[in-house]
Amino acid sequence: MFIHDQQQPAATPIPGVAHVTLAGQAEGLRHLSVWRQSMAPGGCTPPHSHPCEEIVLCDAGQGEVHVAGEVHAFRAGQILVLPAGVPHQIFNTGTEPLVSTAVFAATPVPVTLPDGQALELPWRT
Amino acid sequence: MFIHDQQQPAATPIPGVAHVTLAGQAEGLRHLSVWRQSMAPGGCTPPHSHPCEEIVLCDAGQGEVHVAGEVHAFRAGQILVLPAGVPHQIFNTGTEPLVSTAVFAATPVPVTLPDGQALELPWRT
Repeated sequence: MFIHDQQQPAATPIPGVAHVTLAGQAEGLRHLSVWRQSMAPGGCTPPHSHPCEEIVLCDAGQGEVHVAGEVHAFRAGQILVLPAGVPHQIFNTGTEPLVSTAVFAATPVPVTLPDGQALELPWRT
Repeated sequence: MFIHDQQQPAATPIPGVAHVTLAGQAEGLRHLSVWRQSMAPGGCTPPHSHPCEEIVLCDAGQGEVHVAGEVHAFRAGQILVLPAGVPHQIFNTGTEPLVSTAVFAATPVPVTLPDGQALELPWRT
């Protein structure tokens, strides 16, 4: 059993994206990961998918998730539920940082690009 | 893909415990659940365990988790990582509501009492 402070996201090699892994395999988990990220205004993820289910709690800011050719707006206080294997791309469409807590049913968290290649992340998952 | 408002916990038949299931099988999930709960000062859970991993994000207040005869204090801004199958009991030791977001690697979420019996929860898991 671990008790940690929820650390703040720290700068990553990806411009505009700050990240912290709040919990994952380093805490002995096998089936859960929790990340917290902050994305600068104008930023976006690449289009990608995970082979595991994902839940995103939007903590601050506003954005869009693009899924299957559809655009869905979301904002602080909302929750996104992404089934396993569904390609998605998240954009910060606001003027403030988009802060989110993401939960995955896996650790580490595999990330797959549209061409089927694995994306190597610059943080522990 | 679902986008919902993160609803506020609502009163349950358990005195002092308000609950909302933010995501689970009703949203098509198979391996994740997210709950948000508020526990009144002086309140506690029964001793219990889950056969799945659990992460608790403490959003407000302060409490204790009792695990394996040890008492661990925690407060807002901290995270608890509970391995599968570990009996635990959570207490609100503060003077304000203890608000937490709990993530489980299962849906529905089984709850087992110390005598091995399943606890039937008064909310959807």
